[in-house]
Amino acid sequence: MKMKSSDDQPTALDLGPQAELNADLSAYFDKCLEKLGFVPNVLRAYAFDMVKLKAFIDMADNLMLADSGLTKLEREMIAVAVSVVNHCHYCLAAHGAAVRQRAGDPLMGELIAQNYRAANLPARQKAMLDFAVKLTETPDRMEEADREALRKAGFSDRDIWDIAAVAGFYNMSNRIAAATEMRPNAEYHFMAREKKD
Amino acid sequence: MKMKSSDDQPTALDLGPQAELNADLSAYFDKCLEKLGFVPNVLRAYAFDMVKLKAFIDMADNLMLADSGLTKLEREMIAVAVSVVNHCHYCLAAHGAAVRQRAGDPLMGELIAQNYRAANLPARQKAMLDFAVKLTETPDRMEEADREALRKAGFSDRDIWDIAAVAGFYNMSNRIAAATEMRPNAEYHFMAREKKD
Amino acid sequence: MKMKSSDDQPTALDLGPQAELNADLSAYFDKCLEKLGFVPNVLRAYAFDMVKLKAFIDMADNLMLADSGLTKLEREMIAVAVSVVNHCHYCLAAHGAAVRQRAGDPLMGELIAQNYRAANLPARQKAMLDFAVKLTETPDRMEEADREALRKAGFSDRDIWDIAAVAGFYNMSNRIAAATEMRPNAEYHFMAREKKD
Amino acid sequence: MKMKSSDDQPTALDLGPQAELNADLSAYFDKCLEKLGFVPNVLRAYAFDMVKLKAFIDMADNLMLADSGLTKLEREMIAVAVSVVNHCHYCLAAHGAAVRQRAGDPLMGELIAQNYRAANLPARQKAMLDFAVKLTETPDRMEEADREALRKAGFSDRDIWDIAAVAGFYNMSNRIAAATEMRPNAEYHFMAREKKD
Amino acid sequence: MKMKSSDDQPTALDLGPQAELNADLSAYFDKCLEKLGFVPNVLRAYAFDMVKLKAFIDMADNLMLADSGLTKLEREMIAVAVSVVNHCHYCLAAHGAAVRQRAGDPLMGELIAQNYRAANLPARQKAMLDFAVKLTETPDRMEEADREALRKAGFSDRDIWDIAAVAGFYNMSNRIAAATEMRPNAEYHFMAREKKD
Amino acid sequence: MKMKSSDDQPTALDLGPQAELNADLSAYFDKCLEKLGFVPNVLRAYAFDMVKLKAFIDMADNLMLADSGLTKLEREMIAVAVSVVNHCHYCLAAHGAAVRQRAGDPLMGELIAQNYRAANLPARQKAMLDFAVKLTETPDRMEEADREALRKAGFSDRDIWDIAAVAGFYNMSNRIAAATEMRPNAEYHFMAREKKD
Repeated sequence: MKMKSSDDQPTALDLGPQAELNADLSAYFDKCLEKLGFVPNVLRAYAFDMVKLKAFIDMADNLMLADSGLTKLEREMIAVAVSVVNHCHYCLAAHGAAVRQRAGDPLMGELIAQNYRAANLPARQKAMLDFAVKLTETPDRMEEADREALRKAGFSDRDIWDIAAVAGFYNMSNRIAAATEMRPNAEYHFMAREKKD
Repeated sequence: MKMKSSDDQPTALDLGPQAELNADLSAYFDKCLEKLGFVPNVLRAYAFDMVKLKAFIDMADNLMLADSGLTKLEREMIAVAVSVVNHCHYCLAAHGAAVRQRAGDPLMGELIAQNYRAANLPARQKAMLDFAVKLTETPDRMEEADREALRKAGFSDRDIWDIAAVAGFYNMSNRIAAATEMRPNAEYHFMAREKKD
Repeated sequence: MKMKSSDDQPTALDLGPQAELNADLSAYFDKCLEKLGFVPNVLRAYAFDMVKLKAFIDMADNLMLADSGLTKLEREMIAVAVSVVNHCHYCLAAHGAAVRQRAGDPLMGELIAQNYRAANLPARQKAMLDFAVKLTETPDRMEEADREALRKAGFSDRDIWDIAAVAGFYNMSNRIAAATEMRPNAEYHFMAREKKD
Repeated sequence: MKMKSSDDQPTALDLGPQAELNADLSAYFDKCLEKLGFVPNVLRAYAFDMVKLKAFIDMADNLMLADSGLTKLEREMIAVAVSVVNHCHYCLAAHGAAVRQRAGDPLMGELIAQNYRAANLPARQKAMLDFAVKLTETPDRMEEADREALRKAGFSDRDIWDIAAVAGFYNMSNRIAAATEMRPNAEYHFMAREKKD
Repeated sequence: MKMKSSDDQPTALDLGPQAELNADLSAYFDKCLEKLGFVPNVLRAYAFDMVKLKAFIDMADNLMLADSGLTKLEREMIAVAVSVVNHCHYCLAAHGAAVRQRAGDPLMGELIAQNYRAANLPARQKAMLDFAVKLTETPDRMEEADREALRKAGFSDRDIWDIAAVAGFYNMSNRIAAATEMRPNAEYHFMAREKKD
Repeated sequence: MKMKSSDDQPTALDLGPQAELNADLSAYFDKCLEKLGFVPNVLRAYAFDMVKLKAFIDMADNLMLADSGLTKLEREMIAVAVSVVNHCHYCLAAHGAAVRQRAGDPLMGELIAQNYRAANLPARQKAMLDFAVKLTETPDRMEEADREALRKAGFSDRDIWDIAAVAGFYNMSNRIAAATEMRPNAEYHFMAREKKD
């Protein structure tokens, strides 16, 4: 199959040329190249407008990398579990790779990207993903009992905020990706596939 | 009915005390007080963490207020149409008020907040909301034909990005509000209710 | 926005001229004018046929006004909660106003018309609306356990009948309104909006 | 299997003794006995309150038996198609029998009661049931295009009202039956089962 | 209504002439004729290819007739309950008849074919059908708790396999019937309709 | 994460010891070992009963390997697209690997296993998967127009049967896997991951 040249255009939209990167964002792109070997297409998609690009990066990095009662792996697991509900090709590729990498376990990435209920997760992570998936599917059904279930699983109110914020964020980015047919960098598919010993 | 004292706590979560506002954010809160008479509870909810608060404001204000092929009213209409699908009490209160105000028409706000299909909207706005609602309900079904329908209704690819980004954003904030039981300021209910002549 | 002239035609259907009102129905319309200042458009819609009009009024008035273990406010709350599921513009306008009025509380009307789960209702009314909403969404799932939940919340079997009958009735009228694009009288939007002291 | 003695109690609710029938309703019950050999359980269920019973009969008989652009068989077909969506045991039994009888064709009754799309119906009746089923499943999606499809299939606006009113009515009675576990008279299952020559 | 001549062509597809039956399959068809008076149309549909026909018969007969902790009636009940969810005309006709026959009770067949929740089934069969219906509607939600509910209702792990396998099989055959518009033999509608004494 | 030892028990059910394999099935297992390096867990799961195991293999092999107007890759694509809807961990692992292998393209496997609508497939394969997915999600909505769409895309009636039969089969096996928590062999995750030149 001849793939769409995702390296040439990151979405199905013609959004015009990349805006000129300021020093901070230019450094950010360089760091991506250095660490990943490529600039994630979501950033290239946003790069037609520096204000939007910066706002996206600021929010995403805070959610996924700042201090939190959730581990970075747990936040990636939420990203993937939400993206399974929304069948988001871009986010499953990018964050599936992240789960494989952060878990140090390629099977774990596949499991969460296929059906987390099959993964026999620890009770804490099962409760976390149950909440994130219910919030994705039927936000209007959330009730105090849902928060109580998280508290019983050991999460603080501050952690509940983070679960909600991460799940909310991927419900946003899944939809932006879907609406624009955002194409994941091919490299994601090959990352962190090595068998564990 | 004795209402929950939404002025005392903006959500069902105990997120600790408000962080100290830096000068910029302090000025921002003051401006809200001056223009609206209150600080929107969503900002008070985020105010336990200045980085998160700033990231939220930066993204929201860019989406809703920056230059765009969409009018500010149209962006508020998307916010409300998305919030109807998700039955989001907070966003229907806050952005329903915004539609009433920006449209200069209290009936329009009610219509969009109840069922935009009943509003006999111009073809452009009907196409815009059809796209935003499909993206909300079934993001995995978006196809080129959906983008083509927007182009036929007169939207540029850049406008399509903005429709997707606004619809995506409210799918995020609806879920954060639902997960935390965020309570709208009572003032919203009374804003822009005056009958037009 | 130029609104559709809902005062001129109550639905999108051309149903011919109003039939001649008999003395009873003429008095009924006069009473509406006296009490509300207008004849509700649902009555004007039915008025092409006196038999249908009378059958509708007889059933509606018995359900909403006759003696019952449910208060009149509770019956209006059911009407609104059902109409939220069905996104019925007509019924949300008309019965949202009724909830605001009967509750003596404009915020309560908004809450129920947006998402009753956000309203921190007393257990009795929460159980009542949970039953009505489940009956609306998945009637084929009703089981004895659902009736038992109502009995535990203090309802008699006779009350359960009334909850079912009111929820059923608005599932009917929501659909007649949707199928015919029935337009609420503009006056509803402005009723009972005054802030409580 | 030992069946529930549906002749003894028509629902799972204890609604108290039958009210005293006035002369008109007593004559009505007698006519049922004469024509059908039994009083339909839905009437027995309502008989705890003469006002409710009369309102139900008045509306049902007007919808199903009064002059209309729809044949009586077509109205029964709508009743059944709606009841299939809602999986209503009572109405499928009672109105399935009515379709078999009015069609003079037991296979037709089975077809509509299983999946009308398998029935190779004439375009008029296919359009009618498509409208009734969409109205049942997603009332909030009704648009002018749906009414136009009926007009193209030969229906007048007055007929559209009748389709909506009948479909609406069974969305009500399906739910009252589901909420109360209303039990069909056993006789329905055996009516109009004879093979056509 | 003029029915489609289901005896002439068992589906809406033109699959070419029947393949020559080998001795075993010829004997199998003869046995159908002898026992039922007709060859079920599903077999006639498959008969364009002897390998496919044999594979279908081998699997179906093993599931429905081999030794199992489930009675043959229970397996037919699963077939019908699954087919209700999928609104499968063919399977409701054929297996509805089988339930009527194996139960020796025409009302039971109607009940299961309309809504098994209305049937006041023994706890064992209720649990069995709840599992089969959940598996039909939301297979991705199955968890250990679902299997535990069956074990508590008295089923062995081997029985759980059989429930899953029968429910799975009708999810397959329902879809083949729907995709091809498979038509049930008219005879099914008249089988086992006699009133019990 | 400590994974469940899927090599020790292929499902969550205790189905007793493996039955003695007859010569044919023993040779079949040997061939799996030779070609794949392992016996697929679905076969190990069925191996408690030789008749069931043989019926499953006969049907699966005929559907996926026999002569057909569909290529073997196309049949695997259907298997995966159906399994995405049902979120089936086992089938996504096993048939995702098969698509990667048969397509000679690891990206293609990921695409179909995430969202085939993002894959810019040729019209023929897009039509094929649209049909299979609609048949999976809403079998009761299939109409002649769906078959006509396949014919217009170049499929014969015989091909339509095969599309339906393969889609049906995976709706069965997805459910058996879900009901029993069937665990894919770990090897699947590592197969055919090599980058194309």
